[in-house]
Amino acid sequence: MKSDRKSRNYPGIFITLEGPEGAGKSSQLAWLGRELGERGCRVVATREPGGTPLAERLRGLIKHGSGEPLTPVTELLLLEAARAQHVAERIAPALLAGEVVICDRFMDSTLAYQGGGRGLEPELIERLNQAAVGRFRPDLTILLDLPVEEGFVRTRKRALESAATDRFESQELDFHRRVRECFLQLARREPERIRVVDARPAPDVVHQAVMELVNELF
Amino acid sequence: MKSDRKSRNYPGIFITLEGPEGAGKSSQLAWLGRELGERGCRVVATREPGGTPLAERLRGLIKHGSGEPLTPVTELLLLEAARAQHVAERIAPALLAGEVVICDRFMDSTLAYQGGGRGLEPELIERLNQAAVGRFRPDLTILLDLPVEEGFVRTRKRALESAATDRFESQELDFHRRVRECFLQLARREPERIRVVDARPAPDVVHQAVMELVNELF
Repeated sequence: MKSDRKSRNYPGIFITLEGPEGAGKSSQLAWLGRELGERGCRVVATREPGGTPLAERLRGLIKHGSGEPLTPVTELLLLEAARAQHVAERIAPALLAGEVVICDRFMDSTLAYQGGGRGLEPELIERLNQAAVGRFRPDLTILLDLPVEEGFVRTRKRALESAATDRFESQELDFHRRVRECFLQLARREPERIRVVDARPAPDVVHQAVMELVNELF
Repeated sequence: MKSDRKSRNYPGIFITLEGPEGAGKSSQLAWLGRELGERGCRVVATREPGGTPLAERLRGLIKHGSGEPLTPVTELLLLEAARAQHVAERIAPALLAGEVVICDRFMDSTLAYQGGGRGLEPELIERLNQAAVGRFRPDLTILLDLPVEEGFVRTRKRALESAATDRFESQELDFHRRVRECFLQLARREPERIRVVDARPAPDVVHQAVMELVNELF
């Protein structure tokens, strides 16, 4: 991986965290940021969708809409617009300045949720990711993997038994199973970049696993 | 053109007006809408970017930004997101209900401005237009064509002589020359759909030319 990095033409390091809601991405990202900062790295911690004023406004439109339901294609295009702006205004300048960028969700989430989950064409999503990201692809993507049922329990703070009887919940479970399967497929396709970490153990155990992968980059 | 329309699987008629600022698109569109309405057509008059609450909010972001300059790719993706929403929420339902949709700017403007003008890849723009528009392509596109200098005089309300000495203005002239050339290329490539109307004569003369083309559809 080190030699791979040397072939890139920017001096920074780009790490993304992926996985379902409830896998602990945000707290692992914060912990990773603190630890890298203590080592003297200049760290930019950011998230998607978001990371610039415009991209955060688009995040609001994606999450809360504008009085009308977004079509899946509209949602995809807004996510990619936010990404293009985020990369150009924040991620690329930091990487070119030699900083470490750590990002909560990035291009693989779009393939997993809009592709695997909503069924949009992977070829279209990849073309858009390419247009938005260009050469600023992550050096390392840590996939915090969690069985779908466990993510549900963690995010909903309620047992699955009651949820499983509900038709909507069961469709949602199917959606998140497709998302997880897509994430794992992406990891199999790019095993050098995307490393899977079991998100079930205690946070400090997960943090250790994350740090081992990050240390390989330095 | 009539037999071409019969091969479509929606009963409505979709007409778009294209061309530079100052060509009179908005007033021609309003005139066309009134005349079709007087004939008893159910007319939806709309515009891009815009046409739904979300798309109008995106129009605001595109035109006024959010405190940061938009990259050309971000701008393109926002335009296409607005289009996807506009087609799904407003244009497609109207066409499926047998209405006449007339729209001030549509997919050809994106090819002309973002492709011809800003130099983004036409292949990417066409892929996005396809994703946003699907089978709801215009039956007729009227290109109100105007020499670039004349459009400048009309929109700026001032003579070109003063503008031509200014470096920024001269770059802007080059931009609009590329936009016009791209519009005319599109018309040569799809002469059945895109019909060129000389926008220099008086508005009533232009309106007559527009009505002759529209009458071919009925």
